[in-house]
Amino acid sequence: MMRVVIVGAGFGGIEVARGLGEARIPVTLIDRHNYHLFQPLLYQVATAALSPADIAEPIRKMLRHYSTVGVVLGEVVAIDLGRRTVSLATGPLIPFDLLVLATGATHSYFGHDEWAAHAPGLKTIEDARRIRSRILLAFEQAEVCADPIEQERLMTIAVIGGGPTGVELAGSIAELARYTLSKDFHRIRADTATVLLLEAGDRLLAAFPEALASYAERKLERLGVTVRLRAAVECVEANSIRVAGQEIGVGLVVWAAGVAASSVGSLLGIPTDRLGRVAVNADLSVRGLEHIFALGDLALVTDKSGAPLPGLAQVAKQEGQYLGHALAKKIRKGRIAEPFEFHNRGNTAIIGRHAAIFDFGWWRIRGWLAWMFWAIIHVYLLVGFQHRLLVAVQWLWRYVTYESGARLIVENGE
Amino acid sequence: MMRVVIVGAGFGGIEVARGLGEARIPVTLIDRHNYHLFQPLLYQVATAALSPADIAEPIRKMLRHYSTVGVVLGEVVAIDLGRRTVSLATGPLIPFDLLVLATGATHSYFGHDEWAAHAPGLKTIEDARRIRSRILLAFEQAEVCADPIEQERLMTIAVIGGGPTGVELAGSIAELARYTLSKDFHRIRADTATVLLLEAGDRLLAAFPEALASYAERKLERLGVTVRLRAAVECVEANSIRVAGQEIGVGLVVWAAGVAASSVGSLLGIPTDRLGRVAVNADLSVRGLEHIFALGDLALVTDKSGAPLPGLAQVAKQEGQYLGHALAKKIRKGRIAEPFEFHNRGNTAIIGRHAAIFDFGWWRIRGWLAWMFWAIIHVYLLVGFQHRLLVAVQWLWRYVTYESGARLIVENGE
Repeated sequence: MMRVVIVGAGFGGIEVARGLGEARIPVTLIDRHNYHLFQPLLYQVATAALSPADIAEPIRKMLRHYSTVGVVLGEVVAIDLGRRTVSLATGPLIPFDLLVLATGATHSYFGHDEWAAHAPGLKTIEDARRIRSRILLAFEQAEVCADPIEQERLMTIAVIGGGPTGVELAGSIAELARYTLSKDFHRIRADTATVLLLEAGDRLLAAFPEALASYAERKLERLGVTVRLRAAVECVEANSIRVAGQEIGVGLVVWAAGVAASSVGSLLGIPTDRLGRVAVNADLSVRGLEHIFALGDLALVTDKSGAPLPGLAQVAKQEGQYLGHALAKKIRKGRIAEPFEFHNRGNTAIIGRHAAIFDFGWWRIRGWLAWMFWAIIHVYLLVGFQHRLLVAVQWLWRYVTYESGARLIVENGE
Repeated sequence: MMRVVIVGAGFGGIEVARGLGEARIPVTLIDRHNYHLFQPLLYQVATAALSPADIAEPIRKMLRHYSTVGVVLGEVVAIDLGRRTVSLATGPLIPFDLLVLATGATHSYFGHDEWAAHAPGLKTIEDARRIRSRILLAFEQAEVCADPIEQERLMTIAVIGGGPTGVELAGSIAELARYTLSKDFHRIRADTATVLLLEAGDRLLAAFPEALASYAERKLERLGVTVRLRAAVECVEANSIRVAGQEIGVGLVVWAAGVAASSVGSLLGIPTDRLGRVAVNADLSVRGLEHIFALGDLALVTDKSGAPLPGLAQVAKQEGQYLGHALAKKIRKGRIAEPFEFHNRGNTAIIGRHAAIFDFGWWRIRGWLAWMFWAIIHVYLLVGFQHRLLVAVQWLWRYVTYESGARLIVENGE
């Protein structure tokens, strides 16, 4: 029997494992974490609305019913194409006949890796916990600060990058400060905190239609976010940033500007595009390495018009579903699969209470209805009924009381 | 106006702040964390049943309505009795006229501090997260381990100390392995894991009546816990412990054997008892330092018979309520308070599903009814309605499905 190894248990990898598990094909799924993460809600952990466990599900539990699927906790550090093995950081070699790479993306600081220490990005639970601690700590420090200039600096939070993550973060940081922290602090007025959303381009949310993006901008401004367009960041230091020549003191910077494919792709020793993505064929096999497959944020997959598919959960998920079935057919019946085709289920971003945008291509909505859609779909997509219930209870609670439940500063948050 | 400073926002300190806040007396509450922790349920975070935020409440939120109460995030590193100031690790000096110390307890390794690295205790959220990660990691390592002896070692978890914390931990680790992890792992049989509960004394739960303690022992054995009495630990190393001359390979050791008062007491430069506790007068003022008060696990308070009160949440809470009112009277009216008197509300410990013990003195119960009492009281005592709701939902869910929701291994868990 073919030995199939999948690296990465995100939206793509988990679907491949499910597809193969259903066909009772032996497969080993390797991930650095023991949980699958529902990344679209990670910003809510970073802004103290949800707990990490609310959006994470043990991989073993998700795949429990597939007796042919083995799960291995480990980090892949090398791929030997000749011997067909992957090596884990802890030592073991895992042999494969077919290899599926679904390792996703990480932050890209555009060659300024020194900014990483001062401007955490938001890709993992640890990132979210770190950002949450730093936001809360900045307000704690402002509360005991005697110097008004220093206090103003501490209460200035800059979000770099006006894509969906930046918009969601800026909106929910502003809501946290305005509605929740303003009641917690007595000396400072937390609702006067400055939340800056800095975007180098001409407008926010480049992937959305102009009308929805400008709606988002107006809504953010009304929440108290200062949106600055054509504001390229030139320098990030511990307590300040330089934007378009201007020095701005900041209590915290969050990086939501750039992502690049995870470095596992580079382990293959083949050329990648500017974002580190691996070129694949129509069946998601890597060009020139037909026994290796790549999907999700790691793979450069194009639509019919030749444009690359965006780095969205739904793209990775559909690719994973496709590849699971395609590989099962290939292994069981030796059949070659139809090419992968992406079906757009709608692109969405949330700005705040009652405010979201939804672009289905043929239908564009914004405001209250889009927000309801967003909430229902995201609760529905969460893995496991317990998570849905807990998250729904917390959202309802927050909606009624303006309270965010998980305002913890953790010791190793820095 | 008198400047009152409280150090520690546990069960004792928070009550003092409330009492003074209600009397509109200015007070500064200092804590190392920004949250109040409901420690009695910490073992459920350590065993993946609850999330940290379920049992932690922001201190600022709890005291939000008291406009005279200031909250400061910081660690007290020195107390100057002459100048009447406390210094924080970050630098600032905070002056006081009356000082209340409510800093609780920490682990004590009986002079073997080198054991701390291998045998984490359970006092903080970070401790709980660390233990949770290590338990889950041991099973992950066993799953990929080829050597059966090493596998057996990894699946041996030793809990040192047969008090309530040790009993609760051992019981819920056994339940986690037997009911939840056994479904997650395919190669290993997680339900065959060895959970050792080691107690140096003659019996478990020395603070409970003999009959309840032996019921707990029987219940633990039925859950699969191996209880060893008169088993003093002589050595703790990374992968093994020595107990009564016998070397035992272990995947994880958890320390639940000893506590000592937090070292803040020693900053006073006065003698303490064997457990680091400070002797106090009947009004909880420190002997010889009448403008300083101590309570909770830090204070040696005796009952009418002269026996020291145990280190329980209800003791700290009653002392805090007493001291809040007593200090308010003293400051407002110059009146000297009645001496503190403890009212026993019942002592409880939980062993597992359907199994708890409750000792009210005049009434002793065990089993299903005690378990219901335990659950209702603990949910009721949780701060905040949201926490009660979330925890109740999760308990109910776990009761029906045998699932623990928060099985996350975190990166900085080690």
